[in-house]
Amino acid sequence: MPTYTAPTKDIQFVLHDVLNISSSDIPGYSDLESDFTGAILDEAGKISSEVLTPLNAVGDTEGCRLENGVVYTPTGFKEAFEKVREGGWPGLDMPEEYGGQNMPVVIGTAVGELFSAANQAFTMYQGLTHGAASAILAHGSDAQKATFLPKMVSCEWTGTMNLTEPHCGTDLGMMRTKAEPQDDGSYKITGQKIFISAGEHDLADNIIHLVLAKITGGPEGIKGVSLFIVPKFLVNEDGSLGARNGATVGKIEEKMGIHGNSTCVMNYDGATGYLIGEEHKGMRAMFTMMNEARLGVGMQGLAQAEAAYQNALAYAKDRLQGRDVTGAKNPDGPADPLIVHPDIRRSLMDQKSFVEGARAFMLWGAQMIDAAHRKGDADADGLVSLLTPVIKGFLSDQGYDMTVQAQQVYGGHGYIEEWGMSQFTRDARIAMIYEGANGIQALDLVGRKLAQDGGKHVMAFFDLVKTFIKDNQGQDEAYDRDFLEPLKKASKDLQQAGMYFMQNGMKNPNNALSGSYDFMHMFGHVCLGLMWAMMAKSARAALAEGNSDAAFYETKITTGRYYMVRQLPATALHLSRIESGADTVMALDAENF
Amino acid sequence: MPTYTAPTKDIQFVLHDVLNISSSDIPGYSDLESDFTGAILDEAGKISSEVLTPLNAVGDTEGCRLENGVVYTPTGFKEAFEKVREGGWPGLDMPEEYGGQNMPVVIGTAVGELFSAANQAFTMYQGLTHGAASAILAHGSDAQKATFLPKMVSCEWTGTMNLTEPHCGTDLGMMRTKAEPQDDGSYKITGQKIFISAGEHDLADNIIHLVLAKITGGPEGIKGVSLFIVPKFLVNEDGSLGARNGATVGKIEEKMGIHGNSTCVMNYDGATGYLIGEEHKGMRAMFTMMNEARLGVGMQGLAQAEAAYQNALAYAKDRLQGRDVTGAKNPDGPADPLIVHPDIRRSLMDQKSFVEGARAFMLWGAQMIDAAHRKGDADADGLVSLLTPVIKGFLSDQGYDMTVQAQQVYGGHGYIEEWGMSQFTRDARIAMIYEGANGIQALDLVGRKLAQDGGKHVMAFFDLVKTFIKDNQGQDEAYDRDFLEPLKKASKDLQQAGMYFMQNGMKNPNNALSGSYDFMHMFGHVCLGLMWAMMAKSARAALAEGNSDAAFYETKITTGRYYMVRQLPATALHLSRIESGADTVMALDAENF
Repeated sequence: MPTYTAPTKDIQFVLHDVLNISSSDIPGYSDLESDFTGAILDEAGKISSEVLTPLNAVGDTEGCRLENGVVYTPTGFKEAFEKVREGGWPGLDMPEEYGGQNMPVVIGTAVGELFSAANQAFTMYQGLTHGAASAILAHGSDAQKATFLPKMVSCEWTGTMNLTEPHCGTDLGMMRTKAEPQDDGSYKITGQKIFISAGEHDLADNIIHLVLAKITGGPEGIKGVSLFIVPKFLVNEDGSLGARNGATVGKIEEKMGIHGNSTCVMNYDGATGYLIGEEHKGMRAMFTMMNEARLGVGMQGLAQAEAAYQNALAYAKDRLQGRDVTGAKNPDGPADPLIVHPDIRRSLMDQKSFVEGARAFMLWGAQMIDAAHRKGDADADGLVSLLTPVIKGFLSDQGYDMTVQAQQVYGGHGYIEEWGMSQFTRDARIAMIYEGANGIQALDLVGRKLAQDGGKHVMAFFDLVKTFIKDNQGQDEAYDRDFLEPLKKASKDLQQAGMYFMQNGMKNPNNALSGSYDFMHMFGHVCLGLMWAMMAKSARAALAEGNSDAAFYETKITTGRYYMVRQLPATALHLSRIESGADTVMALDAENF
Repeated sequence: MPTYTAPTKDIQFVLHDVLNISSSDIPGYSDLESDFTGAILDEAGKISSEVLTPLNAVGDTEGCRLENGVVYTPTGFKEAFEKVREGGWPGLDMPEEYGGQNMPVVIGTAVGELFSAANQAFTMYQGLTHGAASAILAHGSDAQKATFLPKMVSCEWTGTMNLTEPHCGTDLGMMRTKAEPQDDGSYKITGQKIFISAGEHDLADNIIHLVLAKITGGPEGIKGVSLFIVPKFLVNEDGSLGARNGATVGKIEEKMGIHGNSTCVMNYDGATGYLIGEEHKGMRAMFTMMNEARLGVGMQGLAQAEAAYQNALAYAKDRLQGRDVTGAKNPDGPADPLIVHPDIRRSLMDQKSFVEGARAFMLWGAQMIDAAHRKGDADADGLVSLLTPVIKGFLSDQGYDMTVQAQQVYGGHGYIEEWGMSQFTRDARIAMIYEGANGIQALDLVGRKLAQDGGKHVMAFFDLVKTFIKDNQGQDEAYDRDFLEPLKKASKDLQQAGMYFMQNGMKNPNNALSGSYDFMHMFGHVCLGLMWAMMAKSARAALAEGNSDAAFYETKITTGRYYMVRQLPATALHLSRIESGADTVMALDAENF
């Protein structure tokens, strides 16, 4: 059975050595001293390892059960959810006025990784509630906030996101769910939604569905979509629960993974709903939720990769098989541990260098969100908006690949469910799909984000990389060679790809869109390259100061060197594909496939 | 529910346009006229689509069931196995003297793809029987052949391969299963074997286990391993079934996929076994089975990718979502089909160009086996031995990736089991693991096959590519530019990698082994690049002759161009990784991970 230990030391390194959060002028950051964040992470790590990890396989094996309209979550989920609630974890980065702890997003993200790594299916119940609460917080009326937020921030009530219908997922303009205005200002919601995570369950007294629907008589297509609050139980004026609303579960989907989360078909049958924000502006409110969810999904990719890596590493140290070709390392045993073999090393280094780079990327992104929200930093807001599809798409794709590699380290045992490695890949697979499949992320990046505000944000990114290189070069030959030169080269590739899109996308947008997926991955590599250059810089500084934990910092530099030499050069391949344009991609008529 | 149609036309193209099999001087090939192979493929396609495909989801959902020592296969498997038997399919390429049809391996391979694509878990029952029969054929005594082969060739009895034990898979020298010599010349086999595919089931009257074990008192390690025939029921002199042998199923493993195949823990408790070939030479006999199995596993990667691709393509044509950015293609409908979108195209072209290239590679390999076996062509034997780990490792890795891409085309529906796309990835995953995990294939390639016979076979491969380029260049500018130039470049990268291994592997073998996985993939790309150059040449010839099916041949050329420009350049990335050597891969001490 897999185990999980929170990578607290590594998170602390990113927060304090690399991002120096407690010296930042972002409001709330000055409290985030190392001891303080360490204590939070230790506590979150404890609940992750001791409470959530043991339930991961239980959730996978048992799944959720629908009986007479009631959904039962797997054994132990209810008690664990109660514990998470008691610890105040769901409201960690929510406003104090609604019962939250008002921590920055960077802390919510760091803790979120631990919970998600320990048990993704379980953590989604609170994750979706967080997203729904954020949408109400940003776009709801004062009365809606007062009614729903306190209970959602505590996870006494949970939340859901209802977008997809059987015939439309990405193309929400085709949606059929209707909202009929009522005299009292509410709406009657009618229609069917599918793939609703945590749609129905037994963990909370009420479920607050956020539902996209079209107000009858409104504009056609996506311009006629509005967002509604549809509670499972209506809420009386005094806050007590009233009548059961017409929002019912049709069935639970059988999925490849995340069995512990109830993915429901939801039927709305004249259910009472309350408009959030303005009529026909539902997509804007939905995107508040969606952008947060996309970052969370990128994090899931990283989290599953970390959990799988930890177990692959333990197995590689423990399993005796074959001999080191350069001489036995365990001469008294029947064989050497797997970790002596170069190809096992390669796989472990792929995983380690991804996970640590991705973690820094994630936390750097979270810091930008804090800068945007807490300091009104418009540049940070623009940059994180540009990077959101990269975080979602690149980290979930690569995270999945890493779980596959981790599974591979186990040989045949990796394919047997009992060992738990299969679950990591099956659970990680969904992150590439939900909250906008990764092809949509690539489209968002190339078709929308690149040109946003006149291309200002992507230019800012290139400037940031350039400035970093300029400020840090010429001090150490090895650092320049191992980190700054590869970063410069990769960033140049990325710029050249952007230039190709500008020059050829005008003529034919397919020239840009045929390379969008490659561009997303290329961008991800450059971001991780930048993270590794930053981390290596911090590690070098710590070593120069004579930090007693030299092995940790030296390992960091070696791991970074691996990434720069083995992964980052992928940018050249992506560039060559991008520069081949739409020609071979679009050449065939559909009937000739 | 997924469907499957045998890609008969494409197979015929490879067999006749590309490989020109019926003009070959390999004994038995002159019979293989296009009408004849077409009739076989039609028949095999029919049973694949109509009988095996509908049982694929049944096998996945029901799995196998163990009750009181009896294993029950999923509903319908028994009747389907009977049909396959009646059609004489299991003996297609087996000798006539044992009831087979004596067809060349190239036909067995072509048919094998269809069966495997339709239902991998089901087809393994006959596939393992084929492998076991081949080992008896090559290494058994005349009496053993006479006793076991007729029933195994017909699949009245099935076969298994027993290598792995709980503590050893790759490192078989550590094996603990014992063989105690008996006075009558037989042995008593005692030990436990795991991961035994088709280990116990209800499809056949008898199961012939081939079991590796150590004869007591023999040499230590791998040099003391022998191979035994251990029938489930002993066979009387008259061929009738005798006593139940001490070979029993301990449990059925719960796996990620191929649920329709019973993967058993097998307990041998003083079971009667008969030595195959010489004492302590078991590995040699096992490798007969293993090499055949490795080619079969490469084919599984291709087959699952083909089946998944067919369904992704159908979905992409059918599912309406979004609009073509260059103008609506389905203006009267609510949206355009997915296939108008460039990133969906990219994914479909990745899949199509892989599958068709892989099919040619597979059949070319099979032709070499026929040349080796039927004509005694030692060069063909050496080349296919070199390429076996490439076929196994590259095709199963890439085949898996393609099933993941196919699943992705379905968006959220790809994650729901009901749609069947998840099964393709879960089933395809095993091919990267069994019959030697792909890291072992890479080790075999770089550590053993490259230097075999003084590096003669890899030199022959480079000569073959060079000669092909030389013989075909200068006739058409577009062909030279689109096919021969990229092939030349990729082949040069591969040679340079080989050179790096020669120059640096002597100093430290880890310099070679750290790049082994990249080398295997690089080699696979060059092989597919060669296949595409060959296929494009044949397609051009057909077009020049005025063949009426111009669309087919033009599509072939376009698909090839896609591969050459989008996939083949990966060789440069692999080369750059290889040339970074063991440095960053091996730098960390195990405790610093």
